[in-house]
Amino acid sequence: MKQFVFSFDEANGSMRELLGGKGANLAEMTGLGMPVPPGFTVSTEACTQYYTDGRRINEDIEKQIFDALAKLENRMGKKLGDEADPLLVSVRSGARASMPVMMDTILNLGLTDKSVEGLAKKTGNPRFAYDSYRRFIQMFSDVVMEQDKSVYERILDEIKEAKGYKSDPELTADDLKEIVKLFKDNYRKNQGAEFPQEPKTQLIEATKAVFRSWDNPRANVYRRMNDIPYDWGTAVNIQCMVFGNKGETSGTGVAFTRNPATGEKGLFGEYLMNAQGEDVVAGIRTPKHISELKDQNEKLYNEFVSITQILEKHYRDMQDMEFTIEEGKLYMLQTRNGKRTAQAALKIAVDLVREGMIDEKKAVCMIDPKQLDTLLHPQFNVKALKEAEFVSCALPASPGAACGKIAFTAEEAVERVANGEKVILVRLETSPEDIEGMNASEGILTARGGMTSHAAVVARGMGVCCVSGCPDLVVDEENKKITLAGKTYGPDDWLSLDGTTGNIYAEKIPTEPAELTGDFGVLMSWADKYRELKVRTNADTPRDAAQAVHFGAEGIGLCRTEHMFFDPPRIPAIREMIVSKTVEERERALDKLLPMQKGDFKEMYIALEGRPMTVRFLDPPLHEFVPHEDWEIIELAKTMGLPFDDLKSTILGLHEANPMMGHRGCRLSVTYPEIAKMQTTAVIEAALEVRAEKGWDIVPEIMIPLVGDVKELRYVKSIVCSTADEIIKKANSDMKYMVGTMIEIPRAAVTADKIATEAEFFSFGTNDLTQMTFGFSRDDAGKFLPEYYNKKIYESDPFAKVDTEGVGALVRLASEKGRATRPNIKLGVCGEHGGDPSSVEFFHSVGLNYVSCSPFRVPLARLAAAQANISNPRG
Amino acid sequence: MKQFVFSFDEANGSMRELLGGKGANLAEMTGLGMPVPPGFTVSTEACTQYYTDGRRINEDIEKQIFDALAKLENRMGKKLGDEADPLLVSVRSGARASMPVMMDTILNLGLTDKSVEGLAKKTGNPRFAYDSYRRFIQMFSDVVMEQDKSVYERILDEIKEAKGYKSDPELTADDLKEIVKLFKDNYRKNQGAEFPQEPKTQLIEATKAVFRSWDNPRANVYRRMNDIPYDWGTAVNIQCMVFGNKGETSGTGVAFTRNPATGEKGLFGEYLMNAQGEDVVAGIRTPKHISELKDQNEKLYNEFVSITQILEKHYRDMQDMEFTIEEGKLYMLQTRNGKRTAQAALKIAVDLVREGMIDEKKAVCMIDPKQLDTLLHPQFNVKALKEAEFVSCALPASPGAACGKIAFTAEEAVERVANGEKVILVRLETSPEDIEGMNASEGILTARGGMTSHAAVVARGMGVCCVSGCPDLVVDEENKKITLAGKTYGPDDWLSLDGTTGNIYAEKIPTEPAELTGDFGVLMSWADKYRELKVRTNADTPRDAAQAVHFGAEGIGLCRTEHMFFDPPRIPAIREMIVSKTVEERERALDKLLPMQKGDFKEMYIALEGRPMTVRFLDPPLHEFVPHEDWEIIELAKTMGLPFDDLKSTILGLHEANPMMGHRGCRLSVTYPEIAKMQTTAVIEAALEVRAEKGWDIVPEIMIPLVGDVKELRYVKSIVCSTADEIIKKANSDMKYMVGTMIEIPRAAVTADKIATEAEFFSFGTNDLTQMTFGFSRDDAGKFLPEYYNKKIYESDPFAKVDTEGVGALVRLASEKGRATRPNIKLGVCGEHGGDPSSVEFFHSVGLNYVSCSPFRVPLARLAAAQANISNPRG
Repeated sequence: MKQFVFSFDEANGSMRELLGGKGANLAEMTGLGMPVPPGFTVSTEACTQYYTDGRRINEDIEKQIFDALAKLENRMGKKLGDEADPLLVSVRSGARASMPVMMDTILNLGLTDKSVEGLAKKTGNPRFAYDSYRRFIQMFSDVVMEQDKSVYERILDEIKEAKGYKSDPELTADDLKEIVKLFKDNYRKNQGAEFPQEPKTQLIEATKAVFRSWDNPRANVYRRMNDIPYDWGTAVNIQCMVFGNKGETSGTGVAFTRNPATGEKGLFGEYLMNAQGEDVVAGIRTPKHISELKDQNEKLYNEFVSITQILEKHYRDMQDMEFTIEEGKLYMLQTRNGKRTAQAALKIAVDLVREGMIDEKKAVCMIDPKQLDTLLHPQFNVKALKEAEFVSCALPASPGAACGKIAFTAEEAVERVANGEKVILVRLETSPEDIEGMNASEGILTARGGMTSHAAVVARGMGVCCVSGCPDLVVDEENKKITLAGKTYGPDDWLSLDGTTGNIYAEKIPTEPAELTGDFGVLMSWADKYRELKVRTNADTPRDAAQAVHFGAEGIGLCRTEHMFFDPPRIPAIREMIVSKTVEERERALDKLLPMQKGDFKEMYIALEGRPMTVRFLDPPLHEFVPHEDWEIIELAKTMGLPFDDLKSTILGLHEANPMMGHRGCRLSVTYPEIAKMQTTAVIEAALEVRAEKGWDIVPEIMIPLVGDVKELRYVKSIVCSTADEIIKKANSDMKYMVGTMIEIPRAAVTADKIATEAEFFSFGTNDLTQMTFGFSRDDAGKFLPEYYNKKIYESDPFAKVDTEGVGALVRLASEKGRATRPNIKLGVCGEHGGDPSSVEFFHSVGLNYVSCSPFRVPLARLAAAQANISNPRG
Repeated sequence: MKQFVFSFDEANGSMRELLGGKGANLAEMTGLGMPVPPGFTVSTEACTQYYTDGRRINEDIEKQIFDALAKLENRMGKKLGDEADPLLVSVRSGARASMPVMMDTILNLGLTDKSVEGLAKKTGNPRFAYDSYRRFIQMFSDVVMEQDKSVYERILDEIKEAKGYKSDPELTADDLKEIVKLFKDNYRKNQGAEFPQEPKTQLIEATKAVFRSWDNPRANVYRRMNDIPYDWGTAVNIQCMVFGNKGETSGTGVAFTRNPATGEKGLFGEYLMNAQGEDVVAGIRTPKHISELKDQNEKLYNEFVSITQILEKHYRDMQDMEFTIEEGKLYMLQTRNGKRTAQAALKIAVDLVREGMIDEKKAVCMIDPKQLDTLLHPQFNVKALKEAEFVSCALPASPGAACGKIAFTAEEAVERVANGEKVILVRLETSPEDIEGMNASEGILTARGGMTSHAAVVARGMGVCCVSGCPDLVVDEENKKITLAGKTYGPDDWLSLDGTTGNIYAEKIPTEPAELTGDFGVLMSWADKYRELKVRTNADTPRDAAQAVHFGAEGIGLCRTEHMFFDPPRIPAIREMIVSKTVEERERALDKLLPMQKGDFKEMYIALEGRPMTVRFLDPPLHEFVPHEDWEIIELAKTMGLPFDDLKSTILGLHEANPMMGHRGCRLSVTYPEIAKMQTTAVIEAALEVRAEKGWDIVPEIMIPLVGDVKELRYVKSIVCSTADEIIKKANSDMKYMVGTMIEIPRAAVTADKIATEAEFFSFGTNDLTQMTFGFSRDDAGKFLPEYYNKKIYESDPFAKVDTEGVGALVRLASEKGRATRPNIKLGVCGEHGGDPSSVEFFHSVGLNYVSCSPFRVPLARLAAAQANISNPRG
């Protein structure tokens, strides 16, 4: 028979998967001889079994629980709920990973109408006994029976009011007896049954409640956000009660071995005498700093300090501990690796290495890559922020802090910034034409649009702070004023935005730039030492390229040329190209674009200072570049000198039923090879000129998107090569260049062996590959994915975390096939997954050469790549 | 060195791939000792080499040609273009498969200004010599130099007019000399060079012209239509000229061993004395029936008859032969398996088996499956058709013949047909609401829409004759009249449509039903004997189901339930379901649909007479069921008693950026499980009732579409099973049922091992799988695929012929994975590829259990399945 229940003294800290973090650590502390109240853990496997059995605890598990209880009773010489001298226990959840949204704790379990009398007699403290009982009823009703807990609070308040009391301690034993009665009445009214007087029933119900809380909606959302698999389950810890509320020699507290905000070494924490854990949280009394405990009871304090030091050394990490003092005796109730800010995490990791506690690899693995982001953006000056008052709050669309005067259009933003002003661009919503203005602004505020609106996506890509979808905001572009939460502001008023919280301030709050040296620099240098995956960036502007290089990018893995076309001065030329009716007309329009594209690439190469750059040729369907409303078409027709009907029919002709799967990517170059020709010319000439000017050995990398068949690539490559070879020859240069492809269509993955005969590199476009492999469009999936999460069909967003089973299998297949044909083929990823730690780990395991991600994800990817290689070395 | 040139006497008939059909057969006849003018073949590999070398004949191949020519000259004792006694040759193309759209023939090559004199002297016939020369110049200019041939015709006509001649034979030798001069002048004017006087140059240029013609636009289209790979290339046959125009003892003709129209046994053909091949074609003189040759020259006739009999026995198939008589001597110039009508093909195959010439398997393989279609539709009475005159012609959208009175709306059609009338439904264009009316009509005529319009697609699916996109047609629905080619017709006027030619007749032409017995029945029974693949049909109506059973379908592989929803009486209920705001509202609407769906399924089961049926649950995105124009929404809002704004916003909310990849398929059932519940109830109750009524052992097959993850299927299956089990239990029945899935999303193929843990069968939806695997939407691909064909990136339409390399690889992978998990899993295909012979061959090779195709493709699929198993037995 499988063992589902483990007493603390038969387990240890390595059994985290089976016993959860709390249970394993209680066992470990027990093994270390520390003062831990005895108890046992019901395993995570029991939780899984509970769900398999249709949400019931089967007889086998129940028997093991009761056996463990019997042993505990034997050891303590007390029986659970005994009428004379009752054993009381706490019941607490404990998953492998800490999950604050689950049911946490039930205290004082085992109290009944009879055992409360025994407790009163035994302790000689009826007030304590009845207070414990009323707390138990309250917790049991709330967390086990899921009753509305405010009713209990109200009853308590009514009694106090009736008696004229100001605070709980004034309640007498008799008051509490009456409260217990009222609580039980309410329980009966709510449940249609008496409060359970059988302690074993209480125990099993509480255990089931913990299991059940694993599946509550909050837990499901939390798991998805934190990549915790549903099938892990939670364990339940059942432990003898010790009481911090037995008078002035009792107490309870929490402490950290280092400061969780700054990382500074030294005991950090709080405690309260004569209190149970919930009192510390309730905030009615102000807890004392842990150091004051020394004055209270020096011996106990020293004992505690020594335990915390042993624990930190033992776990080789900063510990977060709970303790209780019962009548002068110290008990440890929990220890775990403490949560900490990003800044603290870096300092602790670096300090632990310096202290010789851990090595560099361990330090690298201690940092959660996702935490790094907060360190990369400007932040408000903490003091100034404390004094500021936010006027509204909207969606935190792109992190960081920003402060500037209000600009109403992109043009205005560009102009005022050129004149030395700092501006916040405020728009109803943004559009592709606003890109330059968004880039110039300190931050962006929009009235409409969610977390995936144009403003949000583009701002995150640029690393510009953005708060979006503010319903309190009315924008009056014409009269250059906005109304925000009822007040009106103009171009000379200051706004401050917090892109991490979504807070909006109608005042000037100074910001401070990100600091990439110090502990950050040290830790990242270790990460670079231990990783195999290179990290490139996705960047389309010199600003982004420079930003990414600053963050450690080793080149550009994806430069999307179309973003350059959206620039207001260029869009007329691209539109002219689109409406061209003949090759000659199209070439004429492309001739206008050529010097602009070439200029772009030169600036990019200069920003990269000799690092490589993969340029992806024009990808989106052409209708993205033209207006669709009649009034816009009328205007455009005027500008272009075309009849409206003509232009309108051209634009209608570009309409597609499924633009995702339409005329885009290399399909454009197959239809209009002159586009590929122009883009090749721009890339090659730019590279030649920058080589000549700077002396860098640039090898241009040209990437053909959306290839599905080798013949398609062969055709476009032949145009690229004939164009490039001619230019290089004419320039008398020996410059090399590479032509490769995106693997973003399932057919490309399946036929990668053939595609590799032409492609010199593959870059997995896992965004599109995910869409095509799952057969759903990202734009539309929002409608049904929530239901998929609810029903646990998907546990994580496949666009955020790569689906290793499906999409990942295709990546692996294509990598193997590509290498079989061309052993030295360069393999990379340029989808958003390149900036997700667990996806980076997968790409490392597949053996890719690099990942490419947005500039602000570069440090994250460097760290994740190092962690992947440390836990699974390529060897 | 590779051999590129083969003389007829060193090759044989088995070398078809290398020498093309014509060359291999000339060699074979030579080997059989038949009178074939000597010559040699330049191989198909030389053609491929020509293209590899950038469209030039390299020195190696040129040398081999000249060596072969030298041997031929030696043997004939004449030299090409000799001034005294010139050897003349013909140059003819000959690919593996006959391709009438390539360059065909150049005769009399080797004539020059000087050798023509030699020929005149040697033959004593200057008229013959100069006539041969002018013909050669004319052909060379036309087919080798691609000059406008009408100029030469004009010169000829001008001379005849000037001389007052009525026909060519009146031209004298001197006239022809003058014509030669004028032809050469024109050649010079056109080419900027003299007509080539070097015979070897003529030969090489003619050979290059044949190679070049392999790549002309017509050839490319023809190859795509006939699945002929581009890389096969064509061979070139160079053969000594024999002349049928050397006087009254010379002649030329063509003959078949059996009648190519009816298949009747007996020599069938025509000949002309004193003529070259082109004269027979030109139609200036009327050729004689081949039997008259006996009177002309009995010995020669007997020799010819004996040769034709030997050839038919030798090739075991009906032969199509060309011959020439030169001064009383018979020469065979070609033999090949003759082209024939579908009817003839069946008769010949069955007769050959009866005659003991071939076995049944060979007979089955002799029929081109694509030919069968013409036999399955009603046809006009041939005599009546001959007397009829068509008034207009449009697109032949769905084959067959139809005759009826004009109906203007679908409702009218249904009503009049119920009253015993036959009608042709005439519409501006059709929409989903017209389906019932289309189904009731004999034929459909539309003013708008192409070959892939709604009318065309639906009509083909139903097997109803349809002519679409008629620009001559004006429909005045309100006043119940149409104008067709200027004349007006009303509800009592007859129309006849020929869906195979697109002809429209404004009169009554009687039709005759398809005949499926006789030779057709015999041959199909053989096909059924030798196939392993089962053949099911895609059918959504009892009429289609019955039709398919009549054509030999062994069940329904795909019953699309949504087509039932488009029916006018049901659409209000489905719309009500769509706009429902709560589960209760939705269930109420579904309750209305339930009896209708159940009724549908009962009728389907009855039509199938106990054969199995796979029912696919609701698949399309819901916006397909609602109107989108404001005026329609206003109307609908009135009917539904909803505020317009409400309804409009619900409808706008259904909009999707990429509907192909949106909220459809099983995603609907995940969001609205009550839909799956209703559909399950309908299927299971229908099956139970028909079992009870008829005593058939029906096992319902429920198919969940668009599955991408096993958990998705598991969720929907759990709803299906709990619903079905309850109904079956309540009915006290032991009926079994199956739940399976479509494999139409790449991820489903990649994870098929997991999906097979839940799916009891897979049906490959190769339409969607092709779209997702290639990453292009069928609706949009039309814009760029033509350019892909032009540039030979794709050689065939992947929606018509399955892409074995990409999509096929996924089908194979999923089959293997599915069988690994569940060895007895049933595997089928229900995309349109199930009705394409080469795709059927592929599915056979993968080891699927069945294909499912539209009713009118069922015989084709049965035959193709047999051919696949005969050439590649499963063993």
